Amino acid sequence: MTPEEAWLRTSVGTSDADSITVQGRDLAGELMGKVSFTELAFLLVRGRLPDAGQTTMLDAVLVSLADHGLTPTVIAARMTHTGAPESLQGAVAAGLLGAGDVFLGVVENTARLLADILQEVDDAEADEEALRAAADAAVRSLLDAGRRVPGLGHPVHKIEDPRTPRMYELAQGAGQLGPHLRLLRIVADVHKEVTGRALPINGAGVAGAALADLGFKADIVRGFALVARTAGLVGHLAEEMEQPIGLKLYGDVEQRAQYEPPK
Amino acid sequence: MTPEEAWLRTSVGTSDADSITVQGRDLAGELMGKVSFTELAFLLVRGRLPDAGQTTMLDAVLVSLADHGLTPTVIAARMTHTGAPESLQGAVAAGLLGAGDVFLGVVENTARLLADILQEVDDAEADEEALRAAADAAVRSLLDAGRRVPGLGHPVHKIEDPRTPRMYELAQGAGQLGPHLRLLRIVADVHKEVTGRALPINGAGVAGAALADLGFKADIVRGFALVARTAGLVGHLAEEMEQPIGLKLYGDVEQRAQYEPPK
Amino acid sequence: MTPEEAWLRTSVGTSDADSITVQGRDLAGELMGKVSFTELAFLLVRGRLPDAGQTTMLDAVLVSLADHGLTPTVIAARMTHTGAPESLQGAVAAGLLGAGDVFLGVVENTARLLADILQEVDDAEADEEALRAAADAAVRSLLDAGRRVPGLGHPVHKIEDPRTPRMYELAQGAGQLGPHLRLLRIVADVHKEVTGRALPINGAGVAGAALADLGFKADIVRGFALVARTAGLVGHLAEEMEQPIGLKLYGDVEQRAQYEPPK
Amino acid sequence: MTPEEAWLRTSVGTSDADSITVQGRDLAGELMGKVSFTELAFLLVRGRLPDAGQTTMLDAVLVSLADHGLTPTVIAARMTHTGAPESLQGAVAAGLLGAGDVFLGVVENTARLLADILQEVDDAEADEEALRAAADAAVRSLLDAGRRVPGLGHPVHKIEDPRTPRMYELAQGAGQLGPHLRLLRIVADVHKEVTGRALPINGAGVAGAALADLGFKADIVRGFALVARTAGLVGHLAEEMEQPIGLKLYGDVEQRAQYEPPK
Repeated sequence: MTPEEAWLRTSVGTSDADSITVQGRDLAGELMGKVSFTELAFLLVRGRLPDAGQTTMLDAVLVSLADHGLTPTVIAARMTHTGAPESLQGAVAAGLLGAGDVFLGVVENTARLLADILQEVDDAEADEEALRAAADAAVRSLLDAGRRVPGLGHPVHKIEDPRTPRMYELAQGAGQLGPHLRLLRIVADVHKEVTGRALPINGAGVAGAALADLGFKADIVRGFALVARTAGLVGHLAEEMEQPIGLKLYGDVEQRAQYEPPK
Repeated sequence: MTPEEAWLRTSVGTSDADSITVQGRDLAGELMGKVSFTELAFLLVRGRLPDAGQTTMLDAVLVSLADHGLTPTVIAARMTHTGAPESLQGAVAAGLLGAGDVFLGVVENTARLLADILQEVDDAEADEEALRAAADAAVRSLLDAGRRVPGLGHPVHKIEDPRTPRMYELAQGAGQLGPHLRLLRIVADVHKEVTGRALPINGAGVAGAALADLGFKADIVRGFALVARTAGLVGHLAEEMEQPIGLKLYGDVEQRAQYEPPK
Repeated sequence: MTPEEAWLRTSVGTSDADSITVQGRDLAGELMGKVSFTELAFLLVRGRLPDAGQTTMLDAVLVSLADHGLTPTVIAARMTHTGAPESLQGAVAAGLLGAGDVFLGVVENTARLLADILQEVDDAEADEEALRAAADAAVRSLLDAGRRVPGLGHPVHKIEDPRTPRMYELAQGAGQLGPHLRLLRIVADVHKEVTGRALPINGAGVAGAALADLGFKADIVRGFALVARTAGLVGHLAEEMEQPIGLKLYGDVEQRAQYEPPK
Repeated sequence: MTPEEAWLRTSVGTSDADSITVQGRDLAGELMGKVSFTELAFLLVRGRLPDAGQTTMLDAVLVSLADHGLTPTVIAARMTHTGAPESLQGAVAAGLLGAGDVFLGVVENTARLLADILQEVDDAEADEEALRAAADAAVRSLLDAGRRVPGLGHPVHKIEDPRTPRMYELAQGAGQLGPHLRLLRIVADVHKEVTGRALPINGAGVAGAALADLGFKADIVRGFALVARTAGLVGHLAEEMEQPIGLKLYGDVEQRAQYEPPK
């Protein structure tokens, strides 16, 4: 390698005739059979393995984020499989493409909001009062700008998102109730005080906070939601192969759609 | 629901105000904190949870298939991130789109070949001799048609793919050395006898056999490779954010490329 | 460039400080304002510009293939935009991913069937009788294998696909009624004789034949359908931005869907 | 259709047994053979056909934006084809996914900047002085915020982008030198005055201005770039099928890449 090529380097993985290396570890000898896929996912992004409490939390986050129900991303994936059954990867990719700002933005935006507030306070020893003041400023700033506070409220789970208390319970038990998860509760409290309206912490928000407590930057937390969604999409596509709804949904839409000539 | 709408149904998941259900199980109460993401992935496709031995094997398969090195799919994902950093899902999707017949086809084709041979024998009590005869016929049929035997040979791991002996060792230890994994070894032996050339069982092939032994049909095994690849791509994209190579690789290609006017 | 790098070359395009070259032509001086986008699309694939008759046909093919109605690919694109409005390219990509074997395979498979029959006859002077005999053999071979003849039949246009007579009329007028288009009519006739059932030549089939007559290989004709679909998808996404149906369709599906626990 | 279903409507297209309708026009009778694909693309988004001058400009824009050279999106598409040759749509989709904010954002952002300035002035009769004052304020506001002025500057075409004077020449000749194109020149002038540094109007910027003059909103102009890119990608993929570089580029990267274990 010439010095000019020092840019072409990676820590993620490499291989030679006898071995495969992932983040500095021997795949066959140190990883297969010794770490779970969840631990590997942590390793791939952080460059080191998680401890037991961190694994518990990352498993819970991934389990909580796998898609459920016939969501828009699932409909897109099934529709894609209807037209292109030759490419399972295409149907999965189509489903992931809809996992954007509206659905996954909450995970990322919650992580970012919490990180920003914590950076504002910038004091590992900050007491709850200081955090509450910073959260109050951040919430008011969002509301004044006509924006919503990420991580709060859910169209279906209006009183409580069942994932939220479970995630806090797991974090408590695993010694993983970190600053982001603690702060998210304060943000929800402050929001209620400021608006007079209680909104539950939603599952995407609590996942974002948990991922931030695991040390992942806001820019990448969406990636874990994509890992979880991929498993959900594969589940739906396995079902679509056995019990297809794509063509019928198309027929249904076509029959009900009204054509309206342009003005 | 009118009878005409009986088609619009799913077993994968649903939710109401208070609960979320995945494959018949309560997400918060029965899954989060109780099953690993690997167990959830099994549940999503099979509709039931794996036992401990099956979980060991699925973890090993997912760990073995996560992308390593700067493969074509990783280059595609990083290049996509270079032009569209606003969409992490787009970069991941671009990476998955390259996980097709050439790279993942081996997982699927190996699972299909083994299932076909087993169906041919169609005798749960089949002795090795009967299996060997059926494998011999299948291998000869592929070679006569000028095709390669899926699951055998690797451009880098020419003598032995390090994932293969490890996967067999794990299967043995977990009581999961099932008919597909056993048969794959017979296929490799037969191939050597027929051609006089020893080819190692490759990592994709052994993964396909292991997934088939876990009860997954050939049509869906590629899906697990996609789950594994998603984690690998997220790892590479996290690195690309910190230490980008996309633009430099583009500049390098542009500088070296030769323009050749059409004839 | 070292000799080892002779592989890194392209004829499609290049640029330097003062100019941009596309397939050997100066983009600003020879192409912009002088050729239509349709002529450019022909140039990009064939390396030379079409004549007037070829341009008429390629325009007609592209116009005929732009998506209409709320097809599965359109639903996938709109659903993707619902979840990821930040990425128009993601929604378009999701739509294109469904443009696979089931929908676009017909264009490609028709082109391939016709090319194969013509190669079989292998005589530029072949009279209709020789073509008819070769078509008869090909049709019987497909039907015997339990397969359908590509390019024939349509679920909605049961008597006649309105695009078909129009395409033949245009080809006649433009002096472009080439061997593939001629042969497709023979194939339809033969199919009727063999099965006793008249199936109309469908729009995808006639497009495939017309593209083959324009000199495009079967492997790439799907690409022109993708160009046409991209315009259709952009039209639908522009409408989705003004008059969204994605979220409502999701709500409708969610409300009507029946959850069925796994057995 | 019940009143509740009034939402499920579209103007883009529909079909019945005998006809296909696109934006209120009969596809076979009114469009095929009568309009070019470029006119159809305009119709699909605007709901009406362009006049001759508008068609000239849209053709020039589409011709100018088709991809040239081995850009990151082209590399992503070719790499995807290397791994998944079974899915041309997947390779095209992967290429489009990289056509995001960094590359196509300029088209969109230029259109938006110009529309914003024009709305600020809000006077169809605004003289150049008023426009210059508004442009000056907008440019200073961007620069003060540490941002670049979209549409200006190019890494390769440092003095002049050859597409720009040609587009202005065509607009002049076609009677299409509208307010956005005029304003873009003023913005470039003002930028030079403010910074003392002359930056050329780039091809993406002039395309964005031309599309805005054609009546397209900033939110959708990226769509036309995607149509153009699709043709460019199909050209590159046709070449990749004949003269593949994907695997060799992978081998080259793999050989040169340096593995660096994580810290």
